[in-house]
Amino acid sequence: MEIDFEKGGGLVPVIVQDASTGEVLMLAYMNREAWEETLKTRKACFWSRSRSKLWMKGETSGHVQEVKEMLLDCDGDALLLKVRQAGGAACHTGFRSCFHHHRREDGWRAFGKKVFDPKEVYDK
Amino acid sequence: MEIDFEKGGGLVPVIVQDASTGEVLMLAYMNREAWEETLKTRKACFWSRSRSKLWMKGETSGHVQEVKEMLLDCDGDALLLKVRQAGGAACHTGFRSCFHHHRREDGWRAFGKKVFDPKEVYDK
Repeated sequence: MEIDFEKGGGLVPVIVQDASTGEVLMLAYMNREAWEETLKTRKACFWSRSRSKLWMKGETSGHVQEVKEMLLDCDGDALLLKVRQAGGAACHTGFRSCFHHHRREDGWRAFGKKVFDPKEVYDK
Repeated sequence: MEIDFEKGGGLVPVIVQDASTGEVLMLAYMNREAWEETLKTRKACFWSRSRSKLWMKGETSGHVQEVKEMLLDCDGDALLLKVRQAGGAACHTGFRSCFHHHRREDGWRAFGKKVFDPKEVYDK
């Protein structure tokens, strides 16, 4: 069993789940280099598709993800990380989870409260 | 807020999570048609990348996923479905979750027990 980076053009999607609560925090991507960095440091490192570079999660915010478990799916083309989320929030908007829009009859509605103020974290 | 199908060339990754236990069951993809079918029927419908066609999850096995909640991430390019999994297993190999390979020091190791025998389900 090996990670199949080829199927997705060098990238695999990575689900990040809170190791203690089971809440899904975010979805990001890894290339082989990001995967090897994550294996080595036990802190989540992704490939930023928008910036086209390695993205050590928490490098700006301090909200690093300490990796507790790593799982691979049956056909090797998706990863699941169970993490301890520093700072209590994974999303750059200040919400605990990036998945904070619920589907309602009339469309997508944000829910929940922000854990931090993005201005305080990113505009230092 | 809308789903951004363009970023992924017409497809968005979809995380499927057990609504009651929080276990992540699988990751699949939807195009707009699969999304609209899911919205309409409240049963998970994906786009099969390998077969290049709509894939009504459970159409062969009977293991349909009844959708309880639908969430969209902060930049609109990933979905999370919380489902009730019929048949007790999401993976075509018979495991409850497609994520049944754990990372160990010496590589990936399967864990857990099969919920069903794939031969009995698919070779009817």
